[in-house]
Amino acid sequence: MKILAFAGSLRKDSYNKALIRAAKELAPSIMDIQIFDLEGIPLYNADLEAEGDPEQVAGFKNAIRQADGLLIATPEYNHGVAAVSKNAIDWASRPPKNAPLNQKPIGILGASPGLTGSARGQSQLRQAFGFTNSYCMPQPEILVYRAHQKFDETGKLTDENTRIYLSRYMEALYEWVNRFI
Amino acid sequence: MKILAFAGSLRKDSYNKALIRAAKELAPSIMDIQIFDLEGIPLYNADLEAEGDPEQVAGFKNAIRQADGLLIATPEYNHGVAAVSKNAIDWASRPPKNAPLNQKPIGILGASPGLTGSARGQSQLRQAFGFTNSYCMPQPEILVYRAHQKFDETGKLTDENTRIYLSRYMEALYEWVNRFI
Amino acid sequence: MKILAFAGSLRKDSYNKALIRAAKELAPSIMDIQIFDLEGIPLYNADLEAEGDPEQVAGFKNAIRQADGLLIATPEYNHGVAAVSKNAIDWASRPPKNAPLNQKPIGILGASPGLTGSARGQSQLRQAFGFTNSYCMPQPEILVYRAHQKFDETGKLTDENTRIYLSRYMEALYEWVNRFI
Amino acid sequence: MKILAFAGSLRKDSYNKALIRAAKELAPSIMDIQIFDLEGIPLYNADLEAEGDPEQVAGFKNAIRQADGLLIATPEYNHGVAAVSKNAIDWASRPPKNAPLNQKPIGILGASPGLTGSARGQSQLRQAFGFTNSYCMPQPEILVYRAHQKFDETGKLTDENTRIYLSRYMEALYEWVNRFI
Repeated sequence: MKILAFAGSLRKDSYNKALIRAAKELAPSIMDIQIFDLEGIPLYNADLEAEGDPEQVAGFKNAIRQADGLLIATPEYNHGVAAVSKNAIDWASRPPKNAPLNQKPIGILGASPGLTGSARGQSQLRQAFGFTNSYCMPQPEILVYRAHQKFDETGKLTDENTRIYLSRYMEALYEWVNRFI
Repeated sequence: MKILAFAGSLRKDSYNKALIRAAKELAPSIMDIQIFDLEGIPLYNADLEAEGDPEQVAGFKNAIRQADGLLIATPEYNHGVAAVSKNAIDWASRPPKNAPLNQKPIGILGASPGLTGSARGQSQLRQAFGFTNSYCMPQPEILVYRAHQKFDETGKLTDENTRIYLSRYMEALYEWVNRFI
Repeated sequence: MKILAFAGSLRKDSYNKALIRAAKELAPSIMDIQIFDLEGIPLYNADLEAEGDPEQVAGFKNAIRQADGLLIATPEYNHGVAAVSKNAIDWASRPPKNAPLNQKPIGILGASPGLTGSARGQSQLRQAFGFTNSYCMPQPEILVYRAHQKFDETGKLTDENTRIYLSRYMEALYEWVNRFI
Repeated sequence: MKILAFAGSLRKDSYNKALIRAAKELAPSIMDIQIFDLEGIPLYNADLEAEGDPEQVAGFKNAIRQADGLLIATPEYNHGVAAVSKNAIDWASRPPKNAPLNQKPIGILGASPGLTGSARGQSQLRQAFGFTNSYCMPQPEILVYRAHQKFDETGKLTDENTRIYLSRYMEALYEWVNRFI
């Protein structure tokens, strides 16, 4: 099972990037998780798109097409989904009739320094996949709150409870993706 | 009264850019509307920000600070706010204690080719301004549906009903911004 | 395949009730659609629940348990899901560990007199099913706009395009529910 | 300044009812806070409404009309606003041209046993007031998380930090309502 995983953050030491790495570490070995970095994907622009997808975008969309499912860790900014996460989806939802996201099973998670743990960001991101005809796993969900206390200075997830939940989450995601392939 | 207006689209012939131009044309003359183009504002990246706001971002944030209010026209993509709109807000919401968006009155509108006229995009954008402590005008609202039938090939708003609604909207926005300055 | 269908409206001549009847009429004959009326289900009250589910609630929850999937038509009020729809979900989401909604596949649709066709109401309703671990069909979606022009005075869906879309929707729902049983 | 306050819960020992009582206790003395109990308000039904508002509804709508502003504490159920809260708004949003909620300033808060503290419930409730043309205070916001640890067995708010935040919140609400009267 091939999973394409990415974080909706460009920051080098992003908690959401670290969460994606931990998810890869803790996933069942049968899941082959490729981590994609959104760096270099420009803001969506239909004029650019009309000239042909920029190279980074084409690579991203191709990687989605080749995956059996996606794993996305999103920050929450301003009570909503980080623009970096949504921008990746805005590109990958195109063209409407033959979008890479069509019929892809998806797992969403997120981390934030506050207590709500990206809850509102995840809700908005999930809403997007109703349009793209993607299959979001409804439960379990992972809201990593007070993220600065859950990772060490190298970006390793050290909080034992979160590691346990994340292991279970990845097992559930395996079952979820398996339903659709 | 100084209003900073922008569309959450980079496309040259964007309906939302055209809507902003129409809003400027139809506004009470007492409103001095400056149109800002989001072209050149990069995706939000906290590492970039830590080195100092990029020039386009600094210009954008400065323009917000000098305005009495904002007018934003947003597309809807994937049942949510266009990433281009949200990205502008993600930058302008920083730094948390002294953000340009703090206490700014805001009018939101939007255009789309479909029937829902950007309804879900506007709802998500509005949600962001709860966090930034900005004052969104609740009503009236403008959902320009079937936008391709409302503008001519030069991007001029030609639909008479929409022109009337937009005139009233701009009068209401004038009153709204006036409450806060 | 047994489908439990209901409208989030108590009004006798509700467009959403009429839409549910049309869905039943147009569904593949292999779908056995039972229409449930929410009349008599009280507002959720944890004290009431602690004394045992009221009779109407128990009947509703039992009907959900016996169904292979659900079909829900919701009005939109005040840019969100009608309280009548949400209230039914608030009851059926209990108890958390063994809720009737757990793992149920669900189709959402909606009708409204306006142009947005219940778009925002549907989005909020969909959000609830992330919590209840239910499986909402992402696409196709049905937004019956200007509902007063689509039904005759007896509540029959007469708009030919809507009938065609609804037939296809019910075929898609059949396939969707079939994935999970 | 007259404030009408209510909780979107019917449970006798509701944390949100307790939060409303604490808000009344901690508010500036210049705020005259009347607490309204939603008990007895039926589910919205346009047929019922057509016969004249039921007595409890008429009393509720009248109390809103006489208030300078509202204070609402909402639970979150199923990642969204509690139906009890939304139902009160669905009644009070009527009739469209002359609704009690029109132009009312509003403060929203909420409590929940979990960590997200009703965040998603508050977001959805806030969305409703865009339609009703009410003026929601954007900040500060109060998300009382782990509510079972913040109140004593008599329903008194005992958590000192929450008491301090709530005092400041009520001062801010006083300023907010004052802008509009």
